[in-house]
Amino acid sequence: MTQNIYDDDDFFRGYCRLPRSVEGLVAAPEWPALRALVPELEGLRVLDLGCGFGWFCHWAREQGAASVLGIDVSENMLARAAVTNVDPAISYTRADMERLELPPASFDLAYSSLALHYVENLDRLISMVSRSLAARGNFVFSVEHPIFTAPSAPGWSTNSAGRTWPVDSYLDEGPRTTDWLVKGVVKQHRTLGTYVNMLIRAGFAIRHVEEWGPTPEQIAVKPEWADERQRPPFLLMAVEKPPTPEE
Amino acid sequence: MTQNIYDDDDFFRGYCRLPRSVEGLVAAPEWPALRALVPELEGLRVLDLGCGFGWFCHWAREQGAASVLGIDVSENMLARAAVTNVDPAISYTRADMERLELPPASFDLAYSSLALHYVENLDRLISMVSRSLAARGNFVFSVEHPIFTAPSAPGWSTNSAGRTWPVDSYLDEGPRTTDWLVKGVVKQHRTLGTYVNMLIRAGFAIRHVEEWGPTPEQIAVKPEWADERQRPPFLLMAVEKPPTPEE
Repeated sequence: MTQNIYDDDDFFRGYCRLPRSVEGLVAAPEWPALRALVPELEGLRVLDLGCGFGWFCHWAREQGAASVLGIDVSENMLARAAVTNVDPAISYTRADMERLELPPASFDLAYSSLALHYVENLDRLISMVSRSLAARGNFVFSVEHPIFTAPSAPGWSTNSAGRTWPVDSYLDEGPRTTDWLVKGVVKQHRTLGTYVNMLIRAGFAIRHVEEWGPTPEQIAVKPEWADERQRPPFLLMAVEKPPTPEE
Repeated sequence: MTQNIYDDDDFFRGYCRLPRSVEGLVAAPEWPALRALVPELEGLRVLDLGCGFGWFCHWAREQGAASVLGIDVSENMLARAAVTNVDPAISYTRADMERLELPPASFDLAYSSLALHYVENLDRLISMVSRSLAARGNFVFSVEHPIFTAPSAPGWSTNSAGRTWPVDSYLDEGPRTTDWLVKGVVKQHRTLGTYVNMLIRAGFAIRHVEEWGPTPEQIAVKPEWADERQRPPFLLMAVEKPPTPEE
């Protein structure tokens, strides 16, 4: 099973204080870019992998989604979702993404925000998601960017060029143990090429790849985000199932 | 016009001494990976953008290509190609890739090795290449990897993790002036996402993205290549034109 760090009490207390936990989607700086990749939701059946507090599930319903299934491994997260983002057409289910089973051709949009980099057997999960989508279904997700996850000792440095992000081990994929909110958080480093090729193998067509950093407008409001343009913190992707052969 | 550094005499003398100039494709460590992306060539009409000495043109003919058009901006390169890799079905043409015009639906494979990162108006060139390919035509190319081109002061550093490649300015695309063989070589830095999205906009389907580094077997023979796994020096891509609607 993927490390369930969100059910570590110290981690969860820290996570609950993050702006995106308190204020939801609007506090996530990458949300405008991710939202731009989400198709028109009216009438769609939506799957949210790693739904957390259910902010996206709730937003999807506001946009007219017919139904939303939110999946998360964390009891803490789902307990909060069940009181914060309640809706008769939202179901929350606890499941480990390493072993998740989904019914075939049952969703029109799969979505995942900053969760897939915890999954060890991502090939299996992506195949399962592909199978669970109807023809022309979309999969939109964000993960920590491979340049961000690669280093064995991640952190900023300074050289004659100013602030830099020293990269090592980029081509050596596998677990990275870092300290984020608590010590010993385990994430999986994969190259960008690996994400793309896995999706293609699972039958997806690539629609868009975005190496996200804050816009100049965002930096004007939050100057402390400026360094995030030195190297992208997040990778956003939109992919699509092909139409059925008859179409 | 793109800086034509290959017609700088000092640069060209240095370039001529590189293993890949002396020995051709077999001396390029990324060639086995790039070759694996090239389709079966028997009977195909091939275009080589930035053909240099014509090594790939010659190899393509050996593999049964029907015809090969090699394009390069450098008189030095083409003069050498005209004596080193001669074949009645290979044509060499001098052209600036910023202004290249190609006839529509005239090629089955477009190929380019380490040339596109010199092109300023890559959007225009990729559209031209797309238009010049027949349905189901392939475009296979390598460029310097964005992690390699990003830094404003590129070079290795050392921290507690060992050798690192400090990255800055990754999200700020545009020219980078570096010293390679001579001072003041100008290359264009683009993010990996920009390459992918440009190709999709031009009507290509992404087949494969490879962030290339030497294999453990290659490093066993050339231990001095080991650091190249800390960050990929090259990006290899294979993309395809869709079938015609009737297919």
